[in-house]
Amino acid sequence: MSVRYYTHPEPFDLELGGQLSELTIAYHTYGELNDNADNVVWVCHALTANSDVADWWPHTVEAGAFLDPDRYFTVCANILGSHYGTTGPLSINPATGEPYYADFPKLTIRDMARAHRLLADALGLREIYALVGSSVGGFQALEWAADEPSRFRKLILIATDAKASPWTIAIDQTQRMAIFADATYGERRPDAAMNGLAAARAIGLLTYRGPEGYNATQQDPADTPPGTLKRACTYQLHQGKKLCRRYNAYSYVTILDAFDTHDIGRGRGGLQVALDRLTMPAILIGLTTDIIFTPAEMRRLAASLPDCRYAEITSPLGHDGFLTEYRQLNRLLIPFINE
Amino acid sequence: MSVRYYTHPEPFDLELGGQLSELTIAYHTYGELNDNADNVVWVCHALTANSDVADWWPHTVEAGAFLDPDRYFTVCANILGSHYGTTGPLSINPATGEPYYADFPKLTIRDMARAHRLLADALGLREIYALVGSSVGGFQALEWAADEPSRFRKLILIATDAKASPWTIAIDQTQRMAIFADATYGERRPDAAMNGLAAARAIGLLTYRGPEGYNATQQDPADTPPGTLKRACTYQLHQGKKLCRRYNAYSYVTILDAFDTHDIGRGRGGLQVALDRLTMPAILIGLTTDIIFTPAEMRRLAASLPDCRYAEITSPLGHDGFLTEYRQLNRLLIPFINE
Repeated sequence: MSVRYYTHPEPFDLELGGQLSELTIAYHTYGELNDNADNVVWVCHALTANSDVADWWPHTVEAGAFLDPDRYFTVCANILGSHYGTTGPLSINPATGEPYYADFPKLTIRDMARAHRLLADALGLREIYALVGSSVGGFQALEWAADEPSRFRKLILIATDAKASPWTIAIDQTQRMAIFADATYGERRPDAAMNGLAAARAIGLLTYRGPEGYNATQQDPADTPPGTLKRACTYQLHQGKKLCRRYNAYSYVTILDAFDTHDIGRGRGGLQVALDRLTMPAILIGLTTDIIFTPAEMRRLAASLPDCRYAEITSPLGHDGFLTEYRQLNRLLIPFINE
Repeated sequence: MSVRYYTHPEPFDLELGGQLSELTIAYHTYGELNDNADNVVWVCHALTANSDVADWWPHTVEAGAFLDPDRYFTVCANILGSHYGTTGPLSINPATGEPYYADFPKLTIRDMARAHRLLADALGLREIYALVGSSVGGFQALEWAADEPSRFRKLILIATDAKASPWTIAIDQTQRMAIFADATYGERRPDAAMNGLAAARAIGLLTYRGPEGYNATQQDPADTPPGTLKRACTYQLHQGKKLCRRYNAYSYVTILDAFDTHDIGRGRGGLQVALDRLTMPAILIGLTTDIIFTPAEMRRLAASLPDCRYAEITSPLGHDGFLTEYRQLNRLLIPFINE
């Protein structure tokens, strides 16, 4: 299935003010909508991913997996501000006829969720059987579910939170500092601030993998001479360059900024009041070595949802375990989604 | 006590090649050497600290504390490559008559320990009663102790390691990427790459404080508007600027590079062989929420030393707990050092 585009016929107002006069949303679907239209699964993607779930989440969209295309009609939309087809900083600003770049307006997670809602409405998907989100995808899922709780039958959350924590905000701020340390940030070209973006990605990787992740995978051979570049260094450099080949610094900053605004309690009477709305059966999956969304915090979040079971994936790979430990993920999610 | 300087009368050869034709070592002492000269405590400092232990390590050098100046003669030398008086990148290169800046040669932890040894010899301190090091200070302590095990009666290690792990090397590499993203790195001025240095420091802070540290101290008031700068952001910016006012990017990179070379097993038949030399009574203190030198790793290190007890400081402040939890530190170290 190749990417499709939905163009919204009206301007899109933003929570922090201003509007996008044109809004395009890129999305993928997998499987077929059934006659009762009750087999819709909506996946919200994380930071730098795209709408092609089958591409970035190995062995989840396939026969026998939890997003089995013979059973479910799975939809994923590229998030607002991103690099992969939905309106973002590299899109043309109709007011100027040129890309927005650093002039792209500031977004919130709530804006992203509202864009998902517009697409779901446009596709005629009134009821969504399961809403799925991991990491900042889970931010969107919780925000959307708090906005329209009756739309969803089940909620699947992985390594995420109902509100951005000081720790995660500090991580984002540090990444912005690295990007802004590159004085080419602000230049009106898609490849501005690439050295800063590479450093920001390397910071992200530290938090995605954590101590166990690096120590499990980046050991040097014994007797490596002290002057040579260590494997962990090569890995950081490689991951930085890899992101620069496929992303832009303006989208990255836009999404970090939105991340920091996340709080499903805002304007809803507080966090617990908002969580109390989410009465649908939910599952929250944590990862044993995740240092971004720690197991202790995940247990607290699960306990504060009305009907949420907590499960844990055992992995040395930290937060990234949600992408790599698909066997455990399927084992936990198949019974939950099918029951 | 104000800083003193020792000027070494000969060139100082470096492990990775080259030499420093002039070597000055800045140091502080506290208390008095006793008649038997058996009350010397040598403290090795961490990354961006200086030789003034009483300044950067509150309530450790005072009456009744573990470095009681009425009892011990404590010495601390500013490390090679640093910003605080010992020869480093801002020192004049005798070959050019100008500061080294980015041309300063690459160092190892072994070079740093060897500079300590030169100073101790020059001061006539043949026996050192206790050698103390936390973090990268512990790297120096372990390296020096492995070089001259019979010189030391006791070893006090806090949140450190006998070899730089892939995780800590990845942290260093990420900080270098942030510094190098600032294109002013390489300019021949002491304040080059200050934006990069600020970002690097912010990365460091993430790892010094960890999830619990930020979540315990940087919560925003409820109902903070989503567009405002969060406390965690202000904190990162502040910490970055604060280091820039007192440090330079060239020293920072020099010490990160040296950090990555750390391996007391190098040239000694491997890590365990080197650890086996350290037969003096030792104590290793870990911190419950330290994500740089995790409690699990600290327990493993303590177990691999011939005569080492392990103790843990309970703190929400991560690695930084070694600077803030001086009550627990004194409670653990006073009996060990005095017995």
